[in-house]
Amino acid sequence: MTEKIKKFLAENRLATPALVVDLDRVVDNYHRLAWHLPEAQIYYAIKANPAPRILKSLAGEGAHFDAASIYEIREALACGAQPDRISFGNTIKKELDIATAARLGISLYAFDSAVELEKLARAAPGARVYCRLLMTNGSAGWPTSRKFGCDIVMARDLLIEARRLGLDPYGVSFHVGSQQTDLNQWDIAIARARLLFTSLQETGVELSMVNLGGGMPVAYGGDSEGPPIPTLQSGCQAITAALLRHFGNQPPRVIVEPGRALVGDAGVIESEVVLISRKSYSDERRWVYLDIGKFGGLAETMDECIRYSIETGHHVGVTGPVVLAGPTCDETDVIYDRARYELPLDLAVGDRVRILATGAYTSSYCSVGFNGFPPISEHYI
Amino acid sequence: MTEKIKKFLAENRLATPALVVDLDRVVDNYHRLAWHLPEAQIYYAIKANPAPRILKSLAGEGAHFDAASIYEIREALACGAQPDRISFGNTIKKELDIATAARLGISLYAFDSAVELEKLARAAPGARVYCRLLMTNGSAGWPTSRKFGCDIVMARDLLIEARRLGLDPYGVSFHVGSQQTDLNQWDIAIARARLLFTSLQETGVELSMVNLGGGMPVAYGGDSEGPPIPTLQSGCQAITAALLRHFGNQPPRVIVEPGRALVGDAGVIESEVVLISRKSYSDERRWVYLDIGKFGGLAETMDECIRYSIETGHHVGVTGPVVLAGPTCDETDVIYDRARYELPLDLAVGDRVRILATGAYTSSYCSVGFNGFPPISEHYI
Repeated sequence: MTEKIKKFLAENRLATPALVVDLDRVVDNYHRLAWHLPEAQIYYAIKANPAPRILKSLAGEGAHFDAASIYEIREALACGAQPDRISFGNTIKKELDIATAARLGISLYAFDSAVELEKLARAAPGARVYCRLLMTNGSAGWPTSRKFGCDIVMARDLLIEARRLGLDPYGVSFHVGSQQTDLNQWDIAIARARLLFTSLQETGVELSMVNLGGGMPVAYGGDSEGPPIPTLQSGCQAITAALLRHFGNQPPRVIVEPGRALVGDAGVIESEVVLISRKSYSDERRWVYLDIGKFGGLAETMDECIRYSIETGHHVGVTGPVVLAGPTCDETDVIYDRARYELPLDLAVGDRVRILATGAYTSSYCSVGFNGFPPISEHYI
Repeated sequence: MTEKIKKFLAENRLATPALVVDLDRVVDNYHRLAWHLPEAQIYYAIKANPAPRILKSLAGEGAHFDAASIYEIREALACGAQPDRISFGNTIKKELDIATAARLGISLYAFDSAVELEKLARAAPGARVYCRLLMTNGSAGWPTSRKFGCDIVMARDLLIEARRLGLDPYGVSFHVGSQQTDLNQWDIAIARARLLFTSLQETGVELSMVNLGGGMPVAYGGDSEGPPIPTLQSGCQAITAALLRHFGNQPPRVIVEPGRALVGDAGVIESEVVLISRKSYSDERRWVYLDIGKFGGLAETMDECIRYSIETGHHVGVTGPVVLAGPTCDETDVIYDRARYELPLDLAVGDRVRILATGAYTSSYCSVGFNGFPPISEHYI
């Protein structure tokens, strides 16, 4: 938690649940990443937290933006982003939305299929396009599927087809998986990218760009199990080394798409303890119910993948094991059970707790009003 | 799909994704349940779909309401519900919200812990309170936890304590688990309720009410695996028989809290196919991406528990296996993979599909705007 947030929380008794984000920390994170990975252009993954105050702060620093929808593109433009600094990074787009984006000046698009290429050729003729490669994502902290990307053989054909359709076959992208802890995954992916560059050269298609996606892990503090989280510096060093190893003295243009890495640790959620109980006299654990849960912003606790650190303020005494749950009438709205969190024994109803590093993938995941509870209030300072 | 919805969809080309709910069907479902279970008062579980048009329709029929929060209570009152027909059914309540509810005339409250009883005694003195029992929920279609309810021994003590605190120990509640297919579960639960009635009589505490909760299953059509879904009639007969078996000629007041059973089959979602692709040349299945997914209203497809029927209109040809996914840049936004849906081979981008029986737990689960996509549009006809 930054000093600025600490001071803000001390001076303001917020209605809970509330998310507080330190914009200075977001900007610091942006510059720190730029420092460690100077060869890359940084496209902020808007979906991590689309708050206008964040977009304005980053646009002011000259950041680029990765947009998942035409709505995010409009929001970024409204916040001062230049259209030539926005990538329409979703491989699943309505043709009408591509046409609108093209009209707004967006010239960089992701794809992973023949049908999407045809849409792009019709709705954004001449645009720069990059093909997303299917990855297996070993060791990523967040469950992954094969939803995005295509096989490398198909990618090669599609990039040739892109040129035939009058598009600019600009490059290739991949995503090693969110919260990726195995740095070797970047090396494997960059090697595949290089393979595609070389293979396409024979056909006269000259790719220029490698989009490394996101996935740089953030330390949440609650993850006592699992592999250690590498530092930003070591992650960037691994990427730089892999680029050098596979591309030598002919480096491509490089794009990264951090979301979590820019805003994750810039946010804190303040929540109130609504109820503490046991289910039976022999229950070894207390149930602690907060006024926020899976449907109010903590969706990433699904399967207990992301384990946030929780601060309980003045309590200094002995702790005991708890099951942590949200306030809705939904059986699945349990935050941490298997993870076996410990909280102070003297924690009481009405106490406030602070959930750390919650700047990313919280406010935007809120339900519109499940069980009637309004979305979390947001404070950007 | 009702004739009214069919006609509405034929006459209106809706922007997708869109939810259309037939209010006549909701009212029909209400009366059908009342017919099959005449001994029960029906409390509509607002959380299933809190649309004002639904609340007004049901209030007009004299329905009672089960509210999960003070926000739902306010909404129900605004829609014409009488305060003495509303139950504050969440066992996790802020004391301030209890006090507000009491001021608004709400006199029936759920609890499952000592701390909650103390709040109720302070904030709603004299209120009727019922204790929720912990159930194991075998055979429920939706994953269950031990989030609600307490052990029967603790429940007994708490109901005695309720009287000591000046509250009215009114009864007991349980929930057999959403989409419960094993009718025997109601018998088991009602037997436990009776045990508590008898045991408390010795202490002079006379319980009056058994709240059977919800959980009556709805046939979604897509569930080819799993046990068959019992009819409403057979479910109600099982409940009536269990009440007779355990309470004989001294029947308690009975409450049921249907959500899904009243609005589930009254709704249809219309969605557009955004993309169809394969991941490699050897991919046996197509990926079909819709403009709705887990974050836009289909949250109950989590773990592929609820399997909706999907209609694809005019297509009559051969079908083939698909993976069905949503439009967001989120790996977890896959609707059906393991369930191995089949869709027509001539299905094309831009085609519309209709997802049936989606009136419950869809619109209220929408994210505020994950990936920038606005919540689903809603049409109550």
